[in-house]
Amino acid sequence: MKTKQNILIIGAGLCGSLLALRLGQRGYNVSVYEMRPDLRKVDISAGRSINLAFSDRGNKAMELVGIEEKVKALCIPMNGRMIHNKAGDTFLSNYSGRSHEYINSVSRGGLNALLLDEAEKHENVSIYFNKKCKSVDFTKTTALFKDYETKSEFIEDADVIIATDGAGSALRKSYYLSKKFLFSFSQDYLTHGYKELSILPTKTGDYKTYKNALHIWPRGSFMLIALPNLDGSFTVTLFLGYDEGTYNFNNLTTPEMVSEFFQKEFPDALELMPNLTEDFFNNPTAPLGTVKCSPWHYKGNTLLMGDSAHAIVPFYGQGMNASFEDVVEFDAVLDQNLENWETVFKSYEATRKKDTDAIADLAIDNFHEMKDHVANPIFQEKRKLEMALEQHFPDAYSSKYSLVTFNENMGYHGAMTRGRAQDKAILNMIANKDIPTVLDMTKDELKQTLKRIQQETNDILEDDKIAALKK
Amino acid sequence: MKTKQNILIIGAGLCGSLLALRLGQRGYNVSVYEMRPDLRKVDISAGRSINLAFSDRGNKAMELVGIEEKVKALCIPMNGRMIHNKAGDTFLSNYSGRSHEYINSVSRGGLNALLLDEAEKHENVSIYFNKKCKSVDFTKTTALFKDYETKSEFIEDADVIIATDGAGSALRKSYYLSKKFLFSFSQDYLTHGYKELSILPTKTGDYKTYKNALHIWPRGSFMLIALPNLDGSFTVTLFLGYDEGTYNFNNLTTPEMVSEFFQKEFPDALELMPNLTEDFFNNPTAPLGTVKCSPWHYKGNTLLMGDSAHAIVPFYGQGMNASFEDVVEFDAVLDQNLENWETVFKSYEATRKKDTDAIADLAIDNFHEMKDHVANPIFQEKRKLEMALEQHFPDAYSSKYSLVTFNENMGYHGAMTRGRAQDKAILNMIANKDIPTVLDMTKDELKQTLKRIQQETNDILEDDKIAALKK
Repeated sequence: MKTKQNILIIGAGLCGSLLALRLGQRGYNVSVYEMRPDLRKVDISAGRSINLAFSDRGNKAMELVGIEEKVKALCIPMNGRMIHNKAGDTFLSNYSGRSHEYINSVSRGGLNALLLDEAEKHENVSIYFNKKCKSVDFTKTTALFKDYETKSEFIEDADVIIATDGAGSALRKSYYLSKKFLFSFSQDYLTHGYKELSILPTKTGDYKTYKNALHIWPRGSFMLIALPNLDGSFTVTLFLGYDEGTYNFNNLTTPEMVSEFFQKEFPDALELMPNLTEDFFNNPTAPLGTVKCSPWHYKGNTLLMGDSAHAIVPFYGQGMNASFEDVVEFDAVLDQNLENWETVFKSYEATRKKDTDAIADLAIDNFHEMKDHVANPIFQEKRKLEMALEQHFPDAYSSKYSLVTFNENMGYHGAMTRGRAQDKAILNMIANKDIPTVLDMTKDELKQTLKRIQQETNDILEDDKIAALKK
Repeated sequence: MKTKQNILIIGAGLCGSLLALRLGQRGYNVSVYEMRPDLRKVDISAGRSINLAFSDRGNKAMELVGIEEKVKALCIPMNGRMIHNKAGDTFLSNYSGRSHEYINSVSRGGLNALLLDEAEKHENVSIYFNKKCKSVDFTKTTALFKDYETKSEFIEDADVIIATDGAGSALRKSYYLSKKFLFSFSQDYLTHGYKELSILPTKTGDYKTYKNALHIWPRGSFMLIALPNLDGSFTVTLFLGYDEGTYNFNNLTTPEMVSEFFQKEFPDALELMPNLTEDFFNNPTAPLGTVKCSPWHYKGNTLLMGDSAHAIVPFYGQGMNASFEDVVEFDAVLDQNLENWETVFKSYEATRKKDTDAIADLAIDNFHEMKDHVANPIFQEKRKLEMALEQHFPDAYSSKYSLVTFNENMGYHGAMTRGRAQDKAILNMIANKDIPTVLDMTKDELKQTLKRIQQETNDILEDDKIAALKK
């Protein structure tokens, strides 16, 4: 395919701006239309998550476009989960036994601004703001926009349209409503919503609690988490049911009730949050949904990418990383020099969809893990064992978390399959008291345990394969 | 709750007419609006499946309303699957080792007509035809209809509206489009479609092939099936990919190609189908989709039931049975005399949804089982073993198929969980050659094998439970 084709990208968020940068580097003529104002000029953070988890899959994409060092400057390493119980006791559960493996808290706005700057360095990339896509005529490869400044509507055409316009995608809506082809689609909401709160810095600009961790207050059916920001603050998120339980978003209607709830459930967090009730009633409560669909493309005309194709809940810290990985995978398909866009899109979806389906499911699993399992003794013993294995046998063992988060050359689907089997093997060995507790293990016993886990894991995978009658 | 309330039912198909009958028996004032003409007066079979599998869950509903004997007269027992290979050899694989367990082929039209007749015997039940529901205002409990005869539109209100209007439900669409609450929804299409064909009776009105079986021609990635009708004919259904493989719905465009395809893949069926190409080009190709959603109800105003809440693919022969079971389950909730409709609807969905989700997944599993696994030697050995177990230990063993189909007092979810674990246990024992082939087993060995299967099944369930960290 010739590279001087015109590619129209809908949405200049994290995925769209990275895609524009990469396609710009590849020599395409790229036009990006974004409904919001330019976030480098206007503060538009309200209502969207302020910081995000950034890890190895995302970083692989940054390496692809050559900006990994610039991104590092925006990152705060988080080495593990800092678990807070009701009494205010804490313990740190590392994400990996290998010290070079950690995740990062990164500012959404800062990273998006960097990507926009880098994309715009390319003459063949143009970005237009305040232009909202209303619908896409995918049979004609044209998109209808509304200009929020002039209030006028206009139509743009292109050789190819790629929608990176997020969970509420206009292209996906056009696919769904047109009924021109069989479009599989799901939107699944949790019965929980979330609300962003904050822990402000001390008067001297310092962090009020430990900086290099993702803080979790797990309470079984709900939880509070906190991620650090560069300015010394933490963005705190409350995940809570809309209707269920003694306290929920529907019945927390007064400052007194909110304070009572935090006093009872999160007293150590409440001490750091004098601004709690103000935040609580100023900030919106937002839903938590998963979107899957297929096909992502219509012939060689249009393609969904990022959240527009696969929006996920935030509990694995992989939403942004998965969208960045989309661009890496798409780029790899472009390297194959296939004959036309339809073949490119088909090939991309055929390799990619099993992985984005997997991370969607893993993210739901992690919701239960974070709010509940992290406080379960068997789960905690598993994590301690896995830390020891990763520390002592760094080349031989990676936990599910490590496979998903730090093994960017293994797809999410493979990581899920192997990781779930390992978890099952270990949890059963611990529950059945088949192995000593990790604190009591000699190095030799640890090695024996590793071998048993590997054997049990392979047996589980083999049994599952036979049960599925796979050829 | 008082019983003299006005209940509006949208749709007088199998589920709607049964629901009308049951609510009529309970003393409610029931009005049913159906978009099609009265099928007792006009032939409207075109494009819909002509016969359906009717089994124990459906029969339980018929017993509830007291018409099981009348339904029996419409049924043709099918004792098993008659598997046809390419050479035209056949073998019968029974559905159960217990001779009183079999499924039935029943005429959709005949059964629906019976239910309408029975419902209309109640003075407090009125059924209106040619009235299409266009939308539902669920906040006001009103529905907008178009009268196909007068072309006018009108609005009806009621104390409660229950939509039994099938996979394309107007109420579900109103839920989805309103965005007034978080509505989880999925539509999932298989990449295969289906087309109905026929084997006509002999000139003397006899069946051209074995009457009391569900015939299957499994070919790995596609299949043909046939179910008997009372008039001596069989309704034949081709399940085939739209695009994939050498032959598919998109490329079978001429009578010559269709004949070539059948000659190559289904020569013994082709001999019975001189009318093949005529049927093929006269009858539509239809998609195969699964619909799930939640919540089914809006407060105490409106409720989805039957296919409108959970449309499934036809491969387990449970679509109609599941919808009939909905009425049985709903009736059981009504028996609890809860305080209001909202509580009734919540309680109904809370108990029912896990089961309709399960049968949706089981139906997809069975698609692969019917087109592919039934021809797999390990699967065939499993079925032979299960037949022997059910025959010799009728009180101690039921296969997954039996649990789903013949155990109407166990929910689909329980049947799925136990059935899948059993399958996994048996398939692994056979694949690993842990047990003799069933033909070589003594009765004592068979008994030992049963014990091992039970033990392995329980171990699998226990391991899964530990892995899920369920409390």
